[in-house]
Amino acid sequence: MQIAKVIGTVVSNQKEPSLRGAKLLLLQFLDEEGRLLPKYEVAADNVGAGIDEWVLVSRGSAARQIVGNETRPLDAAVVGIIDTVNFGNRSLYSKKDQSY
Amino acid sequence: MQIAKVIGTVVSNQKEPSLRGAKLLLLQFLDEEGRLLPKYEVAADNVGAGIDEWVLVSRGSAARQIVGNETRPLDAAVVGIIDTVNFGNRSLYSKKDQSY
Amino acid sequence: MQIAKVIGTVVSNQKEPSLRGAKLLLLQFLDEEGRLLPKYEVAADNVGAGIDEWVLVSRGSAARQIVGNETRPLDAAVVGIIDTVNFGNRSLYSKKDQSY
Amino acid sequence: MQIAKVIGTVVSNQKEPSLRGAKLLLLQFLDEEGRLLPKYEVAADNVGAGIDEWVLVSRGSAARQIVGNETRPLDAAVVGIIDTVNFGNRSLYSKKDQSY
Amino acid sequence: MQIAKVIGTVVSNQKEPSLRGAKLLLLQFLDEEGRLLPKYEVAADNVGAGIDEWVLVSRGSAARQIVGNETRPLDAAVVGIIDTVNFGNRSLYSKKDQSY
Repeated sequence: MQIAKVIGTVVSNQKEPSLRGAKLLLLQFLDEEGRLLPKYEVAADNVGAGIDEWVLVSRGSAARQIVGNETRPLDAAVVGIIDTVNFGNRSLYSKKDQSY
Repeated sequence: MQIAKVIGTVVSNQKEPSLRGAKLLLLQFLDEEGRLLPKYEVAADNVGAGIDEWVLVSRGSAARQIVGNETRPLDAAVVGIIDTVNFGNRSLYSKKDQSY
Repeated sequence: MQIAKVIGTVVSNQKEPSLRGAKLLLLQFLDEEGRLLPKYEVAADNVGAGIDEWVLVSRGSAARQIVGNETRPLDAAVVGIIDTVNFGNRSLYSKKDQSY
Repeated sequence: MQIAKVIGTVVSNQKEPSLRGAKLLLLQFLDEEGRLLPKYEVAADNVGAGIDEWVLVSRGSAARQIVGNETRPLDAAVVGIIDTVNFGNRSLYSKKDQSY
Repeated sequence: MQIAKVIGTVVSNQKEPSLRGAKLLLLQFLDEEGRLLPKYEVAADNVGAGIDEWVLVSRGSAARQIVGNETRPLDAAVVGIIDTVNFGNRSLYSKKDQSY
């Protein structure tokens, strides 16, 4: 999985019927030090992530290993909201220290 | 999924028999700010996208999670025509503001 | 799918038994303007493509959605010989205008 | 598979229910000479890898070919702790020579 | 598939149980002219490839379309030892001309 930050939303009305009801988030990838990378993904979100949160994104067929997504033409999904990222004993990120 | 712009069409007559009837669009990828990237994909389109529209493209086995594509040797498909892309409260793109 | 040009062939005798009889082409990728990219793929060909032709190549599990390839360890296949690539009203490539 | 070094851990509480109990490691990729690359992966670990160890990471659907991961939305997993990497007769890495 | 050269071996004792008995080779990728690229893969080998040989490597789920690998968490496998690579009428590589 990659670490990404929720930066926006995408809305599509004329789409594959199976995608009805899917919430699509615009995610920007972060590097292993937490810096924004010039790389994004539009991913389905079933875990309730919000703007500025750090999330884990799975790509490929993994995106369909989620209840409700099994037959959707998705290649990316948010699979978790990140609480902490630790490098050995050093904390790189802690959600509870963020102020939105 | 990635965001891409429809820039053309590809026609192939001598092809895998299962691809008969598939509409193949040439898509150019956009970055998270809507700028054209030097990267393209030829994708099947079942949602009726037209030139200059912004679309969502799914790659990999996701392209076959679409009625009619299940057994086609496709690795990319248009899964939706984009109406809006929002960054937080800022609108990056709105289809209704475009003039074709 | 990506657009590629057939530039050669690859022969392997000591190989996975299921690959016996597979014709393997060396393809060089083209960008969206038809320029050669420094990127290639060795792909199975069941459609009868020849040297210098432009083809569509599918990668990943799509390569096994072809009669005869279902259980072969292939991650790339030629799925069609390209007749035309059009950018809006402009023709980028037309097979019938080529002289081999 | 790629060779990577375990550099940290990631914790997520609000996540896909099927991921409960999964141990998620932050891995940094190494090049073929053992140098750190600016590329990472968050991967599930079922083999018991620890900080600073070199591991093999599999990506894509391979990550779900592990007992317990079959239906988890994972696209990366640690599949082995590396003991030795040899280039011909030269040893590039030997776990028993490391001091943690 | 990509063309790669066998440059070494990787040994892992503490690993996914299904990988017991798998022979893991370190492969360095070659470009379409046969030059070494700064890119490698650790791949399972069931065809008996040896150091310095040129091989075809398949990645992704293709690696499990091999007898014995079906349920192993592998994302890369050697699928053939290359005998010849030809560009049109020019020979780029011929195994029988190599001296090891």
